Amino acid sequence: MREITIAQLDDMAMGAAVLGTGGGGDPYIGKLMARSAMRGRSPVQLLTFDELSDDDLIVPTAMMGAPTVMVEKVPSGEEIIAAFRALEAYLGRKITATMSIEAGGVNSMVPLTVAARLGIPLIDGDTMGRAFPEIQMVTATLWGVTATPMAIADDKGNSAILNTVNNQWTETFARGIAVNMGAAAYIANYVMTGKQLKEAAIPGTMTLIEQIGTVIRESHEQHTDPIAAVCQVTNGYPIWSGKIIDVVRRTVGGFARGTARIDGSDAYLGRTLEIDFQNEFLIARDGDDALATVPDLITVLDAETGEPITTESLRYGFRVVVLGIPSDYRWRSEAGLNLVGPGYFGYDVSFRPVEERYG
Amino acid sequence: MREITIAQLDDMAMGAAVLGTGGGGDPYIGKLMARSAMRGRSPVQLLTFDELSDDDLIVPTAMMGAPTVMVEKVPSGEEIIAAFRALEAYLGRKITATMSIEAGGVNSMVPLTVAARLGIPLIDGDTMGRAFPEIQMVTATLWGVTATPMAIADDKGNSAILNTVNNQWTETFARGIAVNMGAAAYIANYVMTGKQLKEAAIPGTMTLIEQIGTVIRESHEQHTDPIAAVCQVTNGYPIWSGKIIDVVRRTVGGFARGTARIDGSDAYLGRTLEIDFQNEFLIARDGDDALATVPDLITVLDAETGEPITTESLRYGFRVVVLGIPSDYRWRSEAGLNLVGPGYFGYDVSFRPVEERYG
Repeated sequence: MREITIAQLDDMAMGAAVLGTGGGGDPYIGKLMARSAMRGRSPVQLLTFDELSDDDLIVPTAMMGAPTVMVEKVPSGEEIIAAFRALEAYLGRKITATMSIEAGGVNSMVPLTVAARLGIPLIDGDTMGRAFPEIQMVTATLWGVTATPMAIADDKGNSAILNTVNNQWTETFARGIAVNMGAAAYIANYVMTGKQLKEAAIPGTMTLIEQIGTVIRESHEQHTDPIAAVCQVTNGYPIWSGKIIDVVRRTVGGFARGTARIDGSDAYLGRTLEIDFQNEFLIARDGDDALATVPDLITVLDAETGEPITTESLRYGFRVVVLGIPSDYRWRSEAGLNLVGPGYFGYDVSFRPVEERYG
Repeated sequence: MREITIAQLDDMAMGAAVLGTGGGGDPYIGKLMARSAMRGRSPVQLLTFDELSDDDLIVPTAMMGAPTVMVEKVPSGEEIIAAFRALEAYLGRKITATMSIEAGGVNSMVPLTVAARLGIPLIDGDTMGRAFPEIQMVTATLWGVTATPMAIADDKGNSAILNTVNNQWTETFARGIAVNMGAAAYIANYVMTGKQLKEAAIPGTMTLIEQIGTVIRESHEQHTDPIAAVCQVTNGYPIWSGKIIDVVRRTVGGFARGTARIDGSDAYLGRTLEIDFQNEFLIARDGDDALATVPDLITVLDAETGEPITTESLRYGFRVVVLGIPSDYRWRSEAGLNLVGPGYFGYDVSFRPVEERYG
């Protein structure tokens, strides 16, 4: 067990944006929510998996929707407490702790808000090791953990409890509700016992995002190379550098979808990288050549500062470096690739681990 | 208290289709559900309002969706029990009885299924006195009864409990969920105490639908005029007779929408009536002249048999008589007309009670 204080939020949010792979919502907004929740309250206790007993009950919490909308509709923090409380009341059992569904982006910070406000511990881990756009896309699904019972709430006071026959149906119903909630909803789902969590979740991701943020900050203070530092702590590889020349985006079915094009510089001069996103970056292609795909992480960093750039912040003229970062091994099983591999997102491309190409 | 047996279902379903004003779902399907539920079980006890105590708890039940879909996706009856059980579990209180949200169409029969299967009484009343297409369109809304907590379930085993800030939001979320459930969902909502029900619901509508069905059947047996008999028992008026020449329909946003055109015969020769529907018939117009509008009931009967014709059964060549039937007085208040008057459905027409024109 260690404690998280407001002083650590900047680093954590920065690191979360790296694992957010362009999506997961703007961690800056999550940081504002968490800071406001933590101010004047006790530090949040961060528990490792081995500090949980098998009978403990963990209720993860998250935002759901289009990150482009979240920027314009800053949450008060009440919404996520409403979702948590609704599920707690439905379960009628004492909750041990909350956890991040996805350590990438805003959803690294949302459970901190819940933990601080309710005085419950946060688990050092998540169920993606990154961000993904759909509810069923968690390692918990691979281990048979059900997404429901799930609570979903909005800023107006509306809420729902879902019970579905599988996690894909949860996505269908919750997505529809989230769209009707104004494309930004607050959820509590994937209730797990301590025993289930130890099998089905990815340990240490809260610590990892803090480490990533810390090395970026320290590289600024020490005038060292932030990109090399991020690669070192994430085991990632630079796969492109250049200038953003075009971003096409549209909000469809509650998702932020689009494509960014990056003209190459240095070794990539004369070529153009295309990165598609559905909230998160899905595939980076140089012509027909897929340099990196889901489930591996594709992250766009500012070439100067090494700071991660979310899809909603992509702008013409930005000079960037694109990283490929190996995903958690759980995603690379056949079941994992069926759930979140390039084929699921409609790409007729075989997954090739980024370290095989660049390692 | 009186009892309902299988022998009464034919008459009740027939009468329910008259109050269904073309919508409310095909009562034939509801009758099959109810018959199957009642077979081999005790008769259903029908309670009048004055047999309820103020503390009794009533949970109405219904189907929700596009009637055109229900025809092709006949429910097993398990779905509606699932919705009722989900809400009962959520409330954690003993339920006295179930009731019809709308006495028109399939939703007159659905609560009979619940009452028979669970051995609980049915209330002799409803909250529309007819059928309407949207959830908030109940007299209960006018008396401040909330649609939530509400349960919604499908045939696959998915369910949700909604809690919304008003009944219009209930409609929004439930409609989206119902569409994702395949445009046919099963709901339990508008939980009322006996005290609330006595104020906010319309008494006697189960008895009324049976009376309507009975007079149609007896007119066949006695070779008397079925249409005159229906008018007498409903206080209705014939407003048109002729032949259906055209039906345009489309399923949009979970609703069956469209327009039927009826060439006039006899006194109406040389003119064409247009009837618009959104699940139910909304307005009957002869050119610019609105002969009848919501909230009054517009019902299309077979000219020969006097049997009601639902929107999904409308066909070219049918010879029909159109009735205008006065709605319950509760709908004719300013609040009632705001909720279900022609303006709500987008018609720039003032409501004129059908008996003022034809009485």
